[in-house]
Amino acid sequence: MQFQVFSELEYEASFPSTMILNIHAQRNPSQEIVEEKLTLLPELQSEEIVVGENRFLRVQTGELKNFTIVYEATVDVEYELLSAKQIDPLPISEFSPEVIPYLFPSRYCQSDRLSRLAWDLFGNIKRPYDTVMAITDWIYDNVEYMPGTTNSQTSAYDTVTQRTGVCRDFAHLGIALCRALNIPARYFTGYAYQLDPPDFHALFEAFIGGSWIIFDATRLSSPNGLVKIGNGRDAAEAAVSSIFGRVEGKSMTVRCELVPGQDYKPMNRRQLGHKGVSLETVEQA
Amino acid sequence: MQFQVFSELEYEASFPSTMILNIHAQRNPSQEIVEEKLTLLPELQSEEIVVGENRFLRVQTGELKNFTIVYEATVDVEYELLSAKQIDPLPISEFSPEVIPYLFPSRYCQSDRLSRLAWDLFGNIKRPYDTVMAITDWIYDNVEYMPGTTNSQTSAYDTVTQRTGVCRDFAHLGIALCRALNIPARYFTGYAYQLDPPDFHALFEAFIGGSWIIFDATRLSSPNGLVKIGNGRDAAEAAVSSIFGRVEGKSMTVRCELVPGQDYKPMNRRQLGHKGVSLETVEQA
Amino acid sequence: MQFQVFSELEYEASFPSTMILNIHAQRNPSQEIVEEKLTLLPELQSEEIVVGENRFLRVQTGELKNFTIVYEATVDVEYELLSAKQIDPLPISEFSPEVIPYLFPSRYCQSDRLSRLAWDLFGNIKRPYDTVMAITDWIYDNVEYMPGTTNSQTSAYDTVTQRTGVCRDFAHLGIALCRALNIPARYFTGYAYQLDPPDFHALFEAFIGGSWIIFDATRLSSPNGLVKIGNGRDAAEAAVSSIFGRVEGKSMTVRCELVPGQDYKPMNRRQLGHKGVSLETVEQA
Amino acid sequence: MQFQVFSELEYEASFPSTMILNIHAQRNPSQEIVEEKLTLLPELQSEEIVVGENRFLRVQTGELKNFTIVYEATVDVEYELLSAKQIDPLPISEFSPEVIPYLFPSRYCQSDRLSRLAWDLFGNIKRPYDTVMAITDWIYDNVEYMPGTTNSQTSAYDTVTQRTGVCRDFAHLGIALCRALNIPARYFTGYAYQLDPPDFHALFEAFIGGSWIIFDATRLSSPNGLVKIGNGRDAAEAAVSSIFGRVEGKSMTVRCELVPGQDYKPMNRRQLGHKGVSLETVEQA
Repeated sequence: MQFQVFSELEYEASFPSTMILNIHAQRNPSQEIVEEKLTLLPELQSEEIVVGENRFLRVQTGELKNFTIVYEATVDVEYELLSAKQIDPLPISEFSPEVIPYLFPSRYCQSDRLSRLAWDLFGNIKRPYDTVMAITDWIYDNVEYMPGTTNSQTSAYDTVTQRTGVCRDFAHLGIALCRALNIPARYFTGYAYQLDPPDFHALFEAFIGGSWIIFDATRLSSPNGLVKIGNGRDAAEAAVSSIFGRVEGKSMTVRCELVPGQDYKPMNRRQLGHKGVSLETVEQA
Repeated sequence: MQFQVFSELEYEASFPSTMILNIHAQRNPSQEIVEEKLTLLPELQSEEIVVGENRFLRVQTGELKNFTIVYEATVDVEYELLSAKQIDPLPISEFSPEVIPYLFPSRYCQSDRLSRLAWDLFGNIKRPYDTVMAITDWIYDNVEYMPGTTNSQTSAYDTVTQRTGVCRDFAHLGIALCRALNIPARYFTGYAYQLDPPDFHALFEAFIGGSWIIFDATRLSSPNGLVKIGNGRDAAEAAVSSIFGRVEGKSMTVRCELVPGQDYKPMNRRQLGHKGVSLETVEQA
Repeated sequence: MQFQVFSELEYEASFPSTMILNIHAQRNPSQEIVEEKLTLLPELQSEEIVVGENRFLRVQTGELKNFTIVYEATVDVEYELLSAKQIDPLPISEFSPEVIPYLFPSRYCQSDRLSRLAWDLFGNIKRPYDTVMAITDWIYDNVEYMPGTTNSQTSAYDTVTQRTGVCRDFAHLGIALCRALNIPARYFTGYAYQLDPPDFHALFEAFIGGSWIIFDATRLSSPNGLVKIGNGRDAAEAAVSSIFGRVEGKSMTVRCELVPGQDYKPMNRRQLGHKGVSLETVEQA
Repeated sequence: MQFQVFSELEYEASFPSTMILNIHAQRNPSQEIVEEKLTLLPELQSEEIVVGENRFLRVQTGELKNFTIVYEATVDVEYELLSAKQIDPLPISEFSPEVIPYLFPSRYCQSDRLSRLAWDLFGNIKRPYDTVMAITDWIYDNVEYMPGTTNSQTSAYDTVTQRTGVCRDFAHLGIALCRALNIPARYFTGYAYQLDPPDFHALFEAFIGGSWIIFDATRLSSPNGLVKIGNGRDAAEAAVSSIFGRVEGKSMTVRCELVPGQDYKPMNRRQLGHKGVSLETVEQA
């Protein structure tokens, strides 16, 4: 499926600063960049830096006060539909090394403090796929999506009690509960088709049966309507922008459209039954 | 300098569990393992997994209730003494990609919440090396080393106010303050010569002038008396043991001795002047 | 019912300090002190200070290093069994002024942060008595009584997620949830008959239908087996000892016995049906 | 000195709710209400309830959606200027009972967690008056007054590190530091003359030498330009409005003017030297 993504970010700098932006679509085996274009208005010193599969954009504001960054891309995304058998439980003893760090607590996902709660609520579910489904359902049922009620310091430890938040908070709580149950989980940011209102979106992936499977506790996106920007332990590692200096965001426009001529039907998790959707590896021969 | 390190960890499992231990000395360009030996008593299924340069040991307890893990190694450590020129400030725009994640907040190092405090205290210091020296001095002067006053949930945000802790807490606070000031910093665990009482030790490294330089705010170790076990964003990623299941530690013995016949003089940070000590790269031709 | 209560507290002071102890049985309309005796070994300057109905003991350690405080009393406690009608909901508009402060959040009972959770869990229960019964049942079912897992900084905001604690933590969580639902609630400390192991006990009272009704989410005490020491917004106001200076507790012995010759049958909340037990006012003619 | 105070609060209720407002000037020995007028538009059921010296207004919204509450008063305030001798240290052993609760931590003033910090910073100052002066200076120097950076959950434990806030946050931090040093302290809300922009103001009182002395770490008010509304352990007990139900504030206007014909000169703490200003008791014969 091909999507056309677009983001326009307007900033104002108080003095020369460095920014690290995370707005480029990932290049990975299941996501091909058909074409992309980055425009800096006016011209700014910038550079792409790749950490893992994330493509950060490092920008030097120099003496510029006001500037705008526009990213546009056409991205071909393939997803893999995993059968019930492919999402069979995998013991920790068989996790590949790069998965291990996603078992540990992070800035916004204090899985160590949620351990007992997680086991009480979900500890008797046998298969990890069902566990994560139950976690996302529980979050959807118990946390209210309310913009403006949380901020950049809000963490899963708060959300589990305060029970309001936005996509970022839903994702953090999902990740923390997974890790508390020894299921590796990581933050996912991307462009989401039919997201209303349009914005960057955050959700999470859980490592089940050897694959990273997509879950969205907000139910605002569909797993086959996503263009991945990046992964991270949590939002600390995949923020849209990290600012070193003093730069203020003035406006932001985000869009994700279907390239015309394609037939798109949103996937409904429920209809999938015990099938997982992975954007990670479509490595079959 | 060659050190002989030793650790013996005795555990009791309640049911079949997985453990990830972080007790092996790193293999890296400045640290050569002359010989090492791992003993599991009784025999246990185990496997070394390498994440970055960290060598984790994954152990399956199986049906065993009581077991002991003994690690012994002779390690040849070379450090690099960096001249004042080598630790000249490097702008963020020249940081290599793998350094970027160490600018972000993590579980125990909430640099985002310490930002204003850090700039108030240290913001007017020009050179990052002096900044980190000032940070470690400030921690040493203001935080009291008191075993038993903190626990595994204590973070830099607590320590900055509560002002007591152990090596782990000193390191977390140092890291958080560095990151708040846009200096990449990472957790360091290792064996430390002449540490009293003997134990695993935690300190931190700051990325200055292109090198990872060692700092110990506790002043309990000497930079030329360390054998590195691992690095991580914080203790969440470099814990001595992470347990998935239920396993209880029963006893722990740690030693770090000089291989006889060598002449060792502890390095005093003060006497070094503006020279940094790095254990990372000794890549000169 | 008459109880014989006893507490012996052994302390060691590092330098001249002031202590405020809260170990005396309250004198109130439903609790008569038949006889009591306070012994300070050796003799110390002390004074009873009454705040509300609490009887604090203020002690000056002077130059003494080691000392022991022994309190013994025979207390006649009358409780009131309130009919279902007496615990009919009372609107906030009819609360008497002295009750108002117990609607507000306090140090360990951050009802403001638990609001949404409380309404989600208990918001659809009609009668406040049933609400508080549901709260205590929920706490009993979801929080594990585990000495050693919490400390003097643990608050309801932690316990609701971490789900372990002791009587103090159970009480704080009960209070916070009540207040979040606009039910005044206060901390209760006392001597408890048949508490095992013997210790000071903490529970809480909720203001329902015009009376303060006793609830114990730990189920370790019986409402007709209590001798009240004090009330407070939370443990901050009713601590066994508050120390101003440096004094360390060395040992503590607590007992609560039935005066012989009486027929005691523990009250079971369940068997009471919709009847509340109040230790506060037995003011009928 | 006579002041004319005025507040107009406009609300919108979603359903029948109870509000407890704290906008009336206190009646106390040093503050005489010359005249006052409360207007509810439209007419609402309301009632004054007195807790301690605070005069709360309890309002039932009934079926009303929109309503406005207007309070106007002319208040004659006498303050007492205490000589250096009158603010001599008083040992805890001589505190009167009603002062004791103000030694304990509260919702927003976690003095128990700030203890070591407080002793490190201020522990070597001999006289409590100088200690509290040093505390207010330290807060003024280290915390930036920045509306919008904190919210109703922000506490002293946050402010001491995050170092931004408004009058409420400055007061909470002052109180917490005082209590950590065994100096009773309480929250003070009032109308403040020449406050810019006009608003309700929050500051604190410390109990020194037997009197409650006024301190304002924001330096935005003058001790002889205040009309006291209320005291409390912290903002939890002296909030402008506590809402039980769902009511939203729509607008707020606050004024504090001098009754014409008087000669007012703002008191400068510095010029007072070691003299404290108390609004509490002017009970001399």
